[in-house]
Amino acid sequence: MIVRDFNELKNSDRAVSDAKWTSVRMLLANDGMGFSFHITTLQAGSEHQFEYKHHFESVYCISGKGSITDRNTGETHDIKPGVMYALDKHDPHILRSEEELVMACCFNPPVTGTEVHRADGSYAPVDELEES
Amino acid sequence: MIVRDFNELKNSDRAVSDAKWTSVRMLLANDGMGFSFHITTLQAGSEHQFEYKHHFESVYCISGKGSITDRNTGETHDIKPGVMYALDKHDPHILRSEEELVMACCFNPPVTGTEVHRADGSYAPVDELEES
Repeated sequence: MIVRDFNELKNSDRAVSDAKWTSVRMLLANDGMGFSFHITTLQAGSEHQFEYKHHFESVYCISGKGSITDRNTGETHDIKPGVMYALDKHDPHILRSEEELVMACCFNPPVTGTEVHRADGSYAPVDELEES
Repeated sequence: MIVRDFNELKNSDRAVSDAKWTSVRMLLANDGMGFSFHITTLQAGSEHQFEYKHHFESVYCISGKGSITDRNTGETHDIKPGVMYALDKHDPHILRSEEELVMACCFNPPVTGTEVHRADGSYAPVDELEES
């Protein structure tokens, strides 16, 4: 059994940040669960464009307020506590936080922890990471 | 993109209960994500014995207070907001809630929604469900 505490990991090297978000990697590929699990905090007033071409991701809002726009359909959905979105079609999207958002995220295949967002908002597929 | 709201689903047939817990299935196997995602609420003062012999499960505490005992090692860990446990060895365990626990749970392989806890605390493997 693995037991980890977000409040300890947020100040460790399992917390990955850019200027406007921090993602604490509670579970990564090498934990052997077949998915990764992250608690991601998006700064109030920030906007993010992502497209996980090689991953499925689900995102559950624990706290905060914002919206998500599906760039394929143009539809926008409110994000508030209890709302989950799942990118079952690797949907390109824009995520906006009006108030700081805290989100519980699951990735399949699991993130290894070495990915960076590429210019198109994606993470590289696992086989490219292994090659690099 | 799938968008669902816990606060709507908790009063629908996606909410599965027994006397002392309710699990709202935000994502199930047929959503095609490769994992299932549940928000599970455990009644204050309840105790649960589970052993997911055929699944990996991670559980993140959103709110509440309790503890988990690993029945293989005898170790007990406090559960409070921010703590996650991951049953990477299909660990048999006892989960106790002192205050109502709200937990974000990921299962791999994904739960189909038709499972029931068997006498040993497990869910049946997917192939047995398909045969039944």
